[in-house]
Amino acid sequence: MVRQAEVEVQTTGHREVHDLTPTVTAMVRQSGVQCGIAHVFVQGSTGAVALMECERGLKKDLPRLLDGLAPPSPDYAHEQTWHDGNGHSHLQATLLGQAISFPITDGSPLLGTWQQIVLIECDIKPRRRTVIVTAIGE
Amino acid sequence: MVRQAEVEVQTTGHREVHDLTPTVTAMVRQSGVQCGIAHVFVQGSTGAVALMECERGLKKDLPRLLDGLAPPSPDYAHEQTWHDGNGHSHLQATLLGQAISFPITDGSPLLGTWQQIVLIECDIKPRRRTVIVTAIGE
Amino acid sequence: MVRQAEVEVQTTGHREVHDLTPTVTAMVRQSGVQCGIAHVFVQGSTGAVALMECERGLKKDLPRLLDGLAPPSPDYAHEQTWHDGNGHSHLQATLLGQAISFPITDGSPLLGTWQQIVLIECDIKPRRRTVIVTAIGE
Repeated sequence: MVRQAEVEVQTTGHREVHDLTPTVTAMVRQSGVQCGIAHVFVQGSTGAVALMECERGLKKDLPRLLDGLAPPSPDYAHEQTWHDGNGHSHLQATLLGQAISFPITDGSPLLGTWQQIVLIECDIKPRRRTVIVTAIGE
Repeated sequence: MVRQAEVEVQTTGHREVHDLTPTVTAMVRQSGVQCGIAHVFVQGSTGAVALMECERGLKKDLPRLLDGLAPPSPDYAHEQTWHDGNGHSHLQATLLGQAISFPITDGSPLLGTWQQIVLIECDIKPRRRTVIVTAIGE
Repeated sequence: MVRQAEVEVQTTGHREVHDLTPTVTAMVRQSGVQCGIAHVFVQGSTGAVALMECERGLKKDLPRLLDGLAPPSPDYAHEQTWHDGNGHSHLQATLLGQAISFPITDGSPLLGTWQQIVLIECDIKPRRRTVIVTAIGE
């Protein structure tokens, strides 16, 4: 049994951390899958998804960490070809990842209390993001 | 066909790397899934799972790397709200990831000889961790 | 419904980024899975797979980033035991990850236009890599 659904998210730009948990939880519950895996994927090469405690402090700390590891800079080879100012955005998205997955048990996500599903906007301007949620199991 | 099982792991605290391979391999073999995917997930926001050669040297090197990328520090915004000393633990767990997956072929994990499944304790104190293993396929 | 296939890739050594998208896309289309998940896995502990825009600039930038985060060095504990010069290769592969997954919709990969599937050689010499592609769904 497989159920797939899309959700569109409008982001505000670089460093936004958007909580997808309520939306994904509702989709998983509506899927009818009782036991299996849920998969959350963001289309495009400058957005990322991750699992973390979605509280005000970490919503600042995670983008700061990414900006420390792969800082905005005109020195990326990507910049020298494309001049679009988002070489770091690509690298941050690849490093963090563009899909997460977690167990479905008794028809609901099996996540920790402080373990939320977030979309991180790594690009330098607001983007409309397509997130695909797939529930697979029985 | 889907089979799901839980295992509890008591960790010794920050920087412990715990080999889950024997436990997960046994679970996968008992699942009866011959061809498919195995998914290993750690509940909670300060533990991580990864694939690596589980030898004595790398068991030191990986936590050191994480402590270099997201160092323990009172300066995280997370700390300024919660004062629980584990802002870096959250960031390390999110960066490394909280789920891994690998193919099941002929009823067994298809891993390289030096490619083990490990749980990394990123929190600052010993924790009781719940790991969920899901085998999905036919 | 589950379909699994292997592909062998000969890499040229450290820092090569190899585009797997045409191969994986063909495998997914041939699998007959219409709706589900595709899973791409590299066997071994010093290779990685990731999603990124596979253009000339980023093919330089991503390996440079990894060499900045986990630099080649004789100081890793791994080196002190094994003396094989690839401690950083192990750490880079674990950090980036060894599996990626994405949705299958209408029998094809649902990827962004600039979102390709790549194999990154983190080891210090050319390697023959086994990549396993699993399509699961209905």
